[in-house]
Amino acid sequence: MQFHLNGFKTGDPVVQEPNPDAAFLADTDSLPEDVDVLIVGCGPAGLTLAAQLAAFPEIRTRIVEQKAGPLQLGQADGVACRTMEMFEAFGFAERLEKEAYWVNETTFWKPDPASPDKIARSGRVQDVEDGLSEFPHVILNQARVHDFYLEIMRNSPNRLEPNYSRRLVNLEVDYDPGHERPVTVHLERTDPGHEGETETVRAKYVVGCDGARSVVRKALGRELKGDSANQAWGVMDVLAVTDFPDIRFKSLVQSAREGSILIIPREGGYLVRIYVELDKLRPDERVANRNITVEHLIAAAGRILHPYSIDVKEVAWWSVYEIGQRLCDKFDDVPTEDASSRLPRVFIAGDACHTHSPKAGQGMNVSMQDTFNLGWKLAHVLKGLSKPDLLASYSAERQAIAQNLIDFDREWAKLVSAPVKSDSNPDGVDPAEVQKYFVQHGRYTAGTASRYLPSVLTGGGEHQHLAEGFQIGMRFHSAPVVRLADAKPLQLGHVIKADGRWRLFAFAGRDDPVAGTSAIRLLCDFLEKDASSPVLRHTAEGEDIDAVIDLRVVFQQGHRDLALAGMPSLLQPPKGRYGLRDYEKLFCPDLKSGCDIFDMRGIDRGKGCVVIVRPDQYVAEVLPLEAFESLSSYFNRILKRRQ
Amino acid sequence: MQFHLNGFKTGDPVVQEPNPDAAFLADTDSLPEDVDVLIVGCGPAGLTLAAQLAAFPEIRTRIVEQKAGPLQLGQADGVACRTMEMFEAFGFAERLEKEAYWVNETTFWKPDPASPDKIARSGRVQDVEDGLSEFPHVILNQARVHDFYLEIMRNSPNRLEPNYSRRLVNLEVDYDPGHERPVTVHLERTDPGHEGETETVRAKYVVGCDGARSVVRKALGRELKGDSANQAWGVMDVLAVTDFPDIRFKSLVQSAREGSILIIPREGGYLVRIYVELDKLRPDERVANRNITVEHLIAAAGRILHPYSIDVKEVAWWSVYEIGQRLCDKFDDVPTEDASSRLPRVFIAGDACHTHSPKAGQGMNVSMQDTFNLGWKLAHVLKGLSKPDLLASYSAERQAIAQNLIDFDREWAKLVSAPVKSDSNPDGVDPAEVQKYFVQHGRYTAGTASRYLPSVLTGGGEHQHLAEGFQIGMRFHSAPVVRLADAKPLQLGHVIKADGRWRLFAFAGRDDPVAGTSAIRLLCDFLEKDASSPVLRHTAEGEDIDAVIDLRVVFQQGHRDLALAGMPSLLQPPKGRYGLRDYEKLFCPDLKSGCDIFDMRGIDRGKGCVVIVRPDQYVAEVLPLEAFESLSSYFNRILKRRQ
Repeated sequence: MQFHLNGFKTGDPVVQEPNPDAAFLADTDSLPEDVDVLIVGCGPAGLTLAAQLAAFPEIRTRIVEQKAGPLQLGQADGVACRTMEMFEAFGFAERLEKEAYWVNETTFWKPDPASPDKIARSGRVQDVEDGLSEFPHVILNQARVHDFYLEIMRNSPNRLEPNYSRRLVNLEVDYDPGHERPVTVHLERTDPGHEGETETVRAKYVVGCDGARSVVRKALGRELKGDSANQAWGVMDVLAVTDFPDIRFKSLVQSAREGSILIIPREGGYLVRIYVELDKLRPDERVANRNITVEHLIAAAGRILHPYSIDVKEVAWWSVYEIGQRLCDKFDDVPTEDASSRLPRVFIAGDACHTHSPKAGQGMNVSMQDTFNLGWKLAHVLKGLSKPDLLASYSAERQAIAQNLIDFDREWAKLVSAPVKSDSNPDGVDPAEVQKYFVQHGRYTAGTASRYLPSVLTGGGEHQHLAEGFQIGMRFHSAPVVRLADAKPLQLGHVIKADGRWRLFAFAGRDDPVAGTSAIRLLCDFLEKDASSPVLRHTAEGEDIDAVIDLRVVFQQGHRDLALAGMPSLLQPPKGRYGLRDYEKLFCPDLKSGCDIFDMRGIDRGKGCVVIVRPDQYVAEVLPLEAFESLSSYFNRILKRRQ
Repeated sequence: MQFHLNGFKTGDPVVQEPNPDAAFLADTDSLPEDVDVLIVGCGPAGLTLAAQLAAFPEIRTRIVEQKAGPLQLGQADGVACRTMEMFEAFGFAERLEKEAYWVNETTFWKPDPASPDKIARSGRVQDVEDGLSEFPHVILNQARVHDFYLEIMRNSPNRLEPNYSRRLVNLEVDYDPGHERPVTVHLERTDPGHEGETETVRAKYVVGCDGARSVVRKALGRELKGDSANQAWGVMDVLAVTDFPDIRFKSLVQSAREGSILIIPREGGYLVRIYVELDKLRPDERVANRNITVEHLIAAAGRILHPYSIDVKEVAWWSVYEIGQRLCDKFDDVPTEDASSRLPRVFIAGDACHTHSPKAGQGMNVSMQDTFNLGWKLAHVLKGLSKPDLLASYSAERQAIAQNLIDFDREWAKLVSAPVKSDSNPDGVDPAEVQKYFVQHGRYTAGTASRYLPSVLTGGGEHQHLAEGFQIGMRFHSAPVVRLADAKPLQLGHVIKADGRWRLFAFAGRDDPVAGTSAIRLLCDFLEKDASSPVLRHTAEGEDIDAVIDLRVVFQQGHRDLALAGMPSLLQPPKGRYGLRDYEKLFCPDLKSGCDIFDMRGIDRGKGCVVIVRPDQYVAEVLPLEAFESLSSYFNRILKRRQ
């Protein structure tokens, strides 16, 4: 954490100075007539976006929610490794590490071959493969994730608070190019004393994070397309006493004749979530008609766990739902045929544009990644860093990811729901197959397999061989390093905060990095002085030199073998009102721990390389250290010239 | 973290249920007439005690402070590894890890032999030796540590808040044994609108954490004895631009003729603390008479750093102080000659009973350890777990620790202040000696070398050979383990929370741990069923079985080689209103990481052992697994029989 740059301040450093322009400060009672961004829905997607936009004091954001207040108890609970990496950027990953259940291993149970009416453990696997992420896969009530985001918003310069009890009535977009705020949104208040009052908000952009029944989506005339659901599952969060030995492991239990359950232990050491497969539904039969009660779920869990027993003492929450995989074909308001002539003004994210089963633990995660993708793009456009064209990439990138998710989920849900293979049911699925599939798709469910295809934003891979471990189009895979100026061991990826900035990670070749002809020095000279330097072009007069593009350098030498003196000035840049030096730009491998980032990420030790990382932590491009023109032209495609 | 035991609750799990007895809830405006414990002073010692006592809803605690509100900017900043271990027990170590500066290495500078008017780096050492603690040595403004404690108090069942603007006028103790609340304290309010109003509080116990000019100490007739100070140092927290390359390392800089400075980088990446040696004082000369300004300090730092320069942009805080090592001979109100006939009612802690230089970074740390020692003892007595005799051990244990500190500080301050040895000054000190002394005493300054001498509380070491790495009388040295029930990797020491409970860590021999004749099973049988079991004797009817003594077992086998089923019931005990099983009692070595706790802590693999750990994390005794009688008799000496 860096703070005190512009003067010493007492108190908690995460609490930002309030915006001196009082007009920006959130009024929690009523909505302003004009905003830059209106977010509809306080779910994980909406709050991720709100927390991201809250980082920029000059952007006027509001978030509305139909419910009367913050969520107390949510459905979602799985937090994938990739999501933890994002939470680290927002500054609260350590709170989940502390409070959440850690999914360390997953176990598999199937009918005991010797006595098929009893279950027996058939397998046990590590949940996340070694080295996949520096974070664990964890489980925590979605409401707590909301709390952490709300705290970020509250501590932001604009003190952003949601406006609750707001029902979206409709929205219209005026595509006349002269409009500064072309989206008009009508809302109705539902809070006591204000029932029926209507409000009209004019916004530059509107983002619908309003769930599977999204009103924003409907206003755009888009629909979720896909399978109609024909399998029902029940889910319950319970406090129970059981002799089932794996009650504190994520466990998939497939019985011979009673169906399957999925056990997800929960935070706090006692609570557990149990997903119970219910009978196949007839196509015309809806969940609501089946009169399923929680007692049915408890009884089914008991039968499936035989010979173990379970005595449920308290049900914290339960629900019954149908599996259905559905998807929108586009995540914004621009019809495909108008893509060349119109730019998006309204977006949808999360469940509003993709729904699927909860069993792979993906829902909340993919939804939050949607708006983490969108947030910096909106901020770039609103702050004048980029032209609005950038916004078209949101739907392009995220719709493809959602399509992958739907495909994966369809297959996984089918496998989990299929009858167990046995002599009497030779067409069933062998639980060993299920386990194999689970392991094979571990990177996918961890959220680390997402890849954006080549585009304006994502390089084509010409120089991928310079750093095989930083796959272009995929998230930046962190590794340990040691900071040169103070010998602090840390994760390199953790320098990427959710602050809307780009990072250039330059990995030095093996030669003396400060010699006058070293590639790092030449790169720094170019970035600091050349007229075509992207750092100079895209940073405005008066901004800190790293305000838009933040250069960090990793050397191959141990930190005791390099001197700070003599390093290029761009690597100890003066910043802020006092011109204080920033000492956090230079890193060395963590040689003592034996974890050398150059080996771990397959970096070419002879040539080194530059890795361009987007504000949402995705690797945009890998380039040779001396590819100045490619570097300039990458940023020229995306950022506006500002000086 | 364990929560939801007595039913699912929404919200932040660290926020405790408020005490249903409203009389216990803190009234921040006025003081009650009767309290159990009155703490005087909201410094680190007072707040550690208040946070500890806040854990017990049945104890009525108040803390008063002369200042008008919470500290904004404190003098102390060094947080030793041992203190971080304690903060982990209080639940906020990770917040310091995130916000604080980490002291990773310390550098030493002395006159350049080739050009003695310039300084040159003469050495560089790792600040904390490998494996000494799982926590780093960090630096953070004391005010932030206060904030963390205040948050714990605010979240406690009694919602404890300090009463500010209270000046202690005097206190009296009535030693008539019939008195329930024998200490009468008179206070005067100093807050606007209440100036001069007096309050009288009757307390069972009073603890003076009111600093070097302690009024409580004076009321007891005790005094700080020791050296009168004759060396002056200046200290300043600054934002500065410098080319001194080690400005982000803790650095001791000794110049040939201009004196010495000590550089302590601070949190946030820019701030730095600089201690500047001032000229020797004449014995009759006091700091206040010297008219030293911060400009003098800045100029001196500049001269000492030559050939480097420093340009101070902002001074956040500065002060001048004299070194003096002073100590009270006893930390409570019982004269040595009355020790057999009277029990303490008033205690002093922290600067109220020991003062010394800040240069070894010990002040805040030792003060907090004082009251961490006292807190559980007071709670034991007030809750009826122990007889009041226990309280005499506070002064006995902590006065000896303070004496060590004073001796260490005297020597270290002398070394640091001594002139540098040179041709013209052959009697000076070689900086290499200073560096050597620093390294030799690294365990001491990390706070991990404190050792309580054999006493009722501390065993004599007869069975120390069973676990050489858990030194009796010293703090429990954590090591990594894996939890059996969910394969979670964690630090064994982190199961010790600041909840006033005792821990028994049983380390199993190498045999099958669940066999009918295994030492672990026999131990569990004894503890669960035998009439002389300390667990049964000292736990009251209706309390959870681990409410007073919490048994945890560590096996030698890997976690995949042991089954939960078949483990003794005491190791999966039913707890709370529902009888939910506690799955967090069983551990295995972290074999995958290669860090086997049995090797790391020198545990006898053939015999195993039991380690008794006090509520303040100190190892009380090491016993053979089958030493039931010794186990019983240890606890019989300290705890009352409760059933």
